Amino acid sequence: MTLTRKGQATRERILEAAAELIAQRGVAGTSTEDVRKAAGIGGSQLYHYFDSKQALIRAVITRQAEAPLVPGQPIMGALDSFDALRAWADAAVEHQERNSGRGDCSLTALAGELGPTDDQAREDLCQAFLRWQSVLHDGLGTMRERGDLRPEANLDELSMALLTALQGGNLLSQTLRTAAPLRASMNAALAYVRSFT
Amino acid sequence: MTLTRKGQATRERILEAAAELIAQRGVAGTSTEDVRKAAGIGGSQLYHYFDSKQALIRAVITRQAEAPLVPGQPIMGALDSFDALRAWADAAVEHQERNSGRGDCSLTALAGELGPTDDQAREDLCQAFLRWQSVLHDGLGTMRERGDLRPEANLDELSMALLTALQGGNLLSQTLRTAAPLRASMNAALAYVRSFT
Repeated sequence: MTLTRKGQATRERILEAAAELIAQRGVAGTSTEDVRKAAGIGGSQLYHYFDSKQALIRAVITRQAEAPLVPGQPIMGALDSFDALRAWADAAVEHQERNSGRGDCSLTALAGELGPTDDQAREDLCQAFLRWQSVLHDGLGTMRERGDLRPEANLDELSMALLTALQGGNLLSQTLRTAAPLRASMNAALAYVRSFT
Repeated sequence: MTLTRKGQATRERILEAAAELIAQRGVAGTSTEDVRKAAGIGGSQLYHYFDSKQALIRAVITRQAEAPLVPGQPIMGALDSFDALRAWADAAVEHQERNSGRGDCSLTALAGELGPTDDQAREDLCQAFLRWQSVLHDGLGTMRERGDLRPEANLDELSMALLTALQGGNLLSQTLRTAAPLRASMNAALAYVRSFT
């Protein structure tokens, strides 16, 4: 479907409203009717853009996946030095400090919330996670080439360790409503990367 | 409410059925009527044990919280040596290898699935996570006293790093349907602990 500029703006408004409602109420607690009202659009217009709740949720996942690795931050440059990784970790912790308990529409939250049977949405989430992992993988690869990391550093494992630290830390931080879990998980993952210098 | 032995068995049967259904369909996709049917009990009998779906979900959380840190394993002894921690990590990875993609009713999954507004259930989850953290904290404390870890090892941070590794690894492994994320996260967390020897 090709959208006019106005159509694109409406679509974006719907997605923003959906992400905000999901952050407050969860996927299950958000109906397409709620989203329609929150976006301030009329009658059947929502179905012009998304023909089902599932289609809407998948579009929210895609939108969140295109966000930078730390929500609320401008898109970061390559994560290809210890300084850049540290800045990324600090930004994630700061974001969590500001937002703990305020609701969350991150992919971490969406991954937990999606029923285990929603295979299409799960596939979208996989793609998003793998894309984020590849950003980390690329950065670590540059560091290894430069000699910051030893040749035996396993880039698959290191990049996955950084990504799981972000997700696990965010999950615990959202539940416990403190940034401490994320701070601990990021410190551990960065120390692990540093152990390969 | 004091239950007879038969009543306790029925209650346990209901909780087992609920955990199984939640693993397959998620919290939102599981109705009390589904649980009643799966547990094979009649009419209003479920409400004798749980007066609402929320009460049932909270009881499932409490039940999962009493399970050992690695589901499917017998309750482990104290995690107070590198060998014990390694065995714990290996058991978690093995469990994930057997179960990836088969549905999950772990606290990781429940933490993601609960709507952000369900404060009582969130409180139960917090207690469960903090109890698990305290098991890890105690074991690390013993290791530090014994001299396996340096005096400056921060037990709060190390125990939280291990717990976030388990949760983040499980979350990514369930989504990606491979044990690789959990293996990476546990390796990183254990290496972090080892860096304090």
